[in-house]
Amino acid sequence: MTALDDATAREAGATPDAPAMSPAAASAGRHLWMHFARMHGRDGADPVPVITKGEGVHLWDDRGRRILDGLAGLFVVQAGHGRRELAEAAARQASELAYFPVWGYTTPPAAELAERLAHLAPGDLNRVFFTSGGGEAVESAWKVAKQYFSLRGKPTKHKVISRATAYHGTTHGAMAITGLPAMKKDFEPLAPGGFRVPNTNLYRHPEFDGDAEALGRWAADRIEEAIGFEGADTVAAVVLEPVQNSGGCLTAPPSYFARVREICDRHDVLLVSDEVINAFGRHGHPFACSRFGFTPDIVTCAKGMTSGYGPLGAMITSDRVIEPFLEPGVTFPHGYTWGGHPVSAAVALANLDLMEREDLYGRVLGNAAAFEATLRKLEDLPIVGDVRGDGYFWAIELVKDKATRETFDAAERERLVKGFLPRALLDNGLYCRPDDRGDVVVQLAPPLIAGQAEFDEMEQILRHTFTEAWALV
Amino acid sequence: MTALDDATAREAGATPDAPAMSPAAASAGRHLWMHFARMHGRDGADPVPVITKGEGVHLWDDRGRRILDGLAGLFVVQAGHGRRELAEAAARQASELAYFPVWGYTTPPAAELAERLAHLAPGDLNRVFFTSGGGEAVESAWKVAKQYFSLRGKPTKHKVISRATAYHGTTHGAMAITGLPAMKKDFEPLAPGGFRVPNTNLYRHPEFDGDAEALGRWAADRIEEAIGFEGADTVAAVVLEPVQNSGGCLTAPPSYFARVREICDRHDVLLVSDEVINAFGRHGHPFACSRFGFTPDIVTCAKGMTSGYGPLGAMITSDRVIEPFLEPGVTFPHGYTWGGHPVSAAVALANLDLMEREDLYGRVLGNAAAFEATLRKLEDLPIVGDVRGDGYFWAIELVKDKATRETFDAAERERLVKGFLPRALLDNGLYCRPDDRGDVVVQLAPPLIAGQAEFDEMEQILRHTFTEAWALV
Repeated sequence: MTALDDATAREAGATPDAPAMSPAAASAGRHLWMHFARMHGRDGADPVPVITKGEGVHLWDDRGRRILDGLAGLFVVQAGHGRRELAEAAARQASELAYFPVWGYTTPPAAELAERLAHLAPGDLNRVFFTSGGGEAVESAWKVAKQYFSLRGKPTKHKVISRATAYHGTTHGAMAITGLPAMKKDFEPLAPGGFRVPNTNLYRHPEFDGDAEALGRWAADRIEEAIGFEGADTVAAVVLEPVQNSGGCLTAPPSYFARVREICDRHDVLLVSDEVINAFGRHGHPFACSRFGFTPDIVTCAKGMTSGYGPLGAMITSDRVIEPFLEPGVTFPHGYTWGGHPVSAAVALANLDLMEREDLYGRVLGNAAAFEATLRKLEDLPIVGDVRGDGYFWAIELVKDKATRETFDAAERERLVKGFLPRALLDNGLYCRPDDRGDVVVQLAPPLIAGQAEFDEMEQILRHTFTEAWALV
Repeated sequence: MTALDDATAREAGATPDAPAMSPAAASAGRHLWMHFARMHGRDGADPVPVITKGEGVHLWDDRGRRILDGLAGLFVVQAGHGRRELAEAAARQASELAYFPVWGYTTPPAAELAERLAHLAPGDLNRVFFTSGGGEAVESAWKVAKQYFSLRGKPTKHKVISRATAYHGTTHGAMAITGLPAMKKDFEPLAPGGFRVPNTNLYRHPEFDGDAEALGRWAADRIEEAIGFEGADTVAAVVLEPVQNSGGCLTAPPSYFARVREICDRHDVLLVSDEVINAFGRHGHPFACSRFGFTPDIVTCAKGMTSGYGPLGAMITSDRVIEPFLEPGVTFPHGYTWGGHPVSAAVALANLDLMEREDLYGRVLGNAAAFEATLRKLEDLPIVGDVRGDGYFWAIELVKDKATRETFDAAERERLVKGFLPRALLDNGLYCRPDDRGDVVVQLAPPLIAGQAEFDEMEQILRHTFTEAWALV
């Protein structure tokens, strides 16, 4: 490109209609392709928001505004921003050995972290396959499940059952497991073998009249039904999040997971707990399956493991799952260059130390009820239909009509979720996530160091913004 | 797991048959699932090698041995190990803002790096979609190609043509583009739409009698033939590496790429240059397509961008490719949590500064002929069939019979490539890559700071090790 193009792009930000852009906004408007975002007008009328700094539970933007981080970056920054000990752990390891692959080798931090994760995980989840991030962990889980059954003489077991509206990643395998048709349609055909069952959205199943146990029995039985539809001889795994993110923090009681576990055992199907969002304290435990009382065959995780100070993900399998791979001559022909990156692994170890030392697990367990109670104050607003979640992971579902639970149509969503909310929330000092991949929700998942002061601030900003939004509907 | 299990695992390393394991080897043997590696006996007789430290072109293991890094980690560590300025760039950014997503936002380092990459890339490759790593970049390229044609009213264009033996990643989409049947068979069915054409292995096409131009014409025409077989209305992209890694550093002349470019233009097919290994100086240029004189529609890259000091990848597209995505209301529904990670982006900027300041590009261009000449000395050995490559990226093909070019059978490969070579090379002080995904090769790709002293040391160690290997065949 030419320098002239860049100058033109920068000037485009300085029209009478828009404030002058920061250099970062101008560069991004011309050269950055943002994820999951509209790109129209980003070099002019609708510049890219620039976040420049973080400290504790706060962010700052390029206009000098302080913003409460109500989403921990993206369900990531458990320990909060600006933690020097994590930055220093990264620098120390980068000086000692910045990179070496786990392709037939190890580094001390990768080995130590594998052992640490095995100790934190429940049951016999003792074997850690590192990835760069969450989507790759889900891909790895599917691949392990396929080869596991192949090695055990059941090569036709290859399909995966997952839940409607659930998000499990964007690569062609993880996307096949994802239950969001609108996100997938332009990329079909995906990897064959993904099948969907209902999720556990109690608010959208009024026929159960608030009985989560009954909904859980029904939803679990739908998994067994799907296994029957496909034939157990063709099904390798059931993949679910302990608390489903997309759709808005959908919980289920322990009895649901116990029943799914039984169904999986009955049909020789592996149970994968996708904890990319749920693990590392979000629900007060290192792994959320512990909170809900079940032991999966595989856990996938990422985000909070390093509190975001370094990219990392992992798939953790039980001794039973790795057993056929330990036979002479067997290889799992799979890997990622950045999987188990020594700097990220060192950061993860420092982060797990920090979380234990500051008892962030106990903090979440202790504060979750207060967080919930504070958010439930919003239930007096006409636009608030439901407040749901667990731990430090909550969704507020917005509706057009509280009595009928009627949701917004496409034009209203456009105005509300794509237009008004993201900018108004940021302007009002709160970063969180308006999302309408399922029904319309606003999600809150602050750093685990947040407390009552931040819960109150979130409630106040949401109250103000939702009141403005209601006037627009 | 129990502490007893761990103690047992540790003791298992201290039998009379094996030396006592380091704590890292013991932890890894019990808890780490290594990538692309056999796992049998790793908690006992065949412990996991542990790399503990790096400095310049050297590595150290847990037995205190110094090892020449002949592979730059995994085609990654361009600037060499132990570069404090890169560690400090990471720590500075991690203290300021360790994590924020590019999901509708940016951070200053992500924006600056996007602009920097656009300036380094040829033609109108001006738009950067960040990923965690290379495989995700390839997935992104395929998804962009599908949606690009969908937006342009050609939704049936979705297939991808790639080359035999080429490796493009391990997720279900990248794997579908990969040309290695043995790596894929246990995971079928993959994403449908991947089709293969021949690569440009001159050594294994003796009918061209060393005429690379003639082989290039034929191989390019096979791409046009494949487009015809499938129907151009169903083909979205051709994906190729400027120098193909798997199979052993397979080069092609500029005329090949020019012809492929013409064929793609003729059939409205996007040309993707997968430069995950080739970019960032490996061939003396920021992007290898510049070296071979062609401008693709999309470049995928990762590894060398940060010299491995932080995980990062990118897909860079032309203005033409992003154009339909800039229309009002259009979104590319795709993304990764770690894509454009601010710490990795800051490290990449510092690394690109370092590479320019120390002129590592010029260094590779200046030294490549000497590297080649030094490696070609090995051609006097009976086991060396071919020496091929470009820049700082070379493969030595090993054969059973130099005259007939006969390669090794399965049992010999087992003895040589899985058994003898990796350990013997490491014992002799050289880390590099014996690989038999295609024919049997040993690959060299040192840090770009390497020079004649390291070329000589590699040649000496290879000579000694290949001589030992020949006695075993």
